[in-house]
Amino acid sequence: MFELHPRLAADTFTVVELPLCSVRLMNESALPWLILVPRRADLREFTDLPTAERHQLMDEICQASDVLQKLFAPDKINVGALGNMVPQLHIHVQARTSSDRCWPGPVWGKFPAIPYDDSSRDQRLAELKTAFHS
Amino acid sequence: MFELHPRLAADTFTVVELPLCSVRLMNESALPWLILVPRRADLREFTDLPTAERHQLMDEICQASDVLQKLFAPDKINVGALGNMVPQLHIHVQARTSSDRCWPGPVWGKFPAIPYDDSSRDQRLAELKTAFHS
Repeated sequence: MFELHPRLAADTFTVVELPLCSVRLMNESALPWLILVPRRADLREFTDLPTAERHQLMDEICQASDVLQKLFAPDKINVGALGNMVPQLHIHVQARTSSDRCWPGPVWGKFPAIPYDDSSRDQRLAELKTAFHS
Repeated sequence: MFELHPRLAADTFTVVELPLCSVRLMNESALPWLILVPRRADLREFTDLPTAERHQLMDEICQASDVLQKLFAPDKINVGALGNMVPQLHIHVQARTSSDRCWPGPVWGKFPAIPYDDSSRDQRLAELKTAFHS
């Protein structure tokens, strides 16, 4: 049975449930950062999914990318599936800009996260939900 | 017309041509590191591809992952599409082990690459070509 890894549960907020993935917002206000978690048990790699769900995952990564493009007009979308620390398969989809603090390097492990305050979090979640549903 | 970005051409060796992507070996002997470059002009994001080619890209990422799994039995495959420095769409597929020098962090930008010597490069390319063709 699928259960969200406790580390992901602690670090993210629910945005929307897509057919395959839970879309979560990383609690890092420095950049718009989504995490997609396929709701299947015991996944570690893309290759653990059957072909149709691999394609569905790509569709949902692209849907998340489109949402970030539309809302934030970033200079680049970064997509990554690492999982060296949290083994449950999860895909990062990040809106990067040349003015963000990690540019042009990757975001992971560089700086401690700056958590959202309640009102910024609620506003960001609301705009994301609206964009995923439109 | 598709032309490989000069930075990718300088940093990688040809492994094999798949239906969509050129598969390249990063000249970094510290870990097995493939780069997939879709042979289409003016791509920056996954979303620049039509749906069928997005799925083909996922299939080829999984094929590259399978090859790395089979040859190197890594602890984790890392997949990333960043492109903040080299804008041409390219996907990193890396065989990570808990004994590699960047573990558990990401590989990018951490250490200068240790280039292959000629004989290690030829051996690695040969085993990769065989695995992709089998």
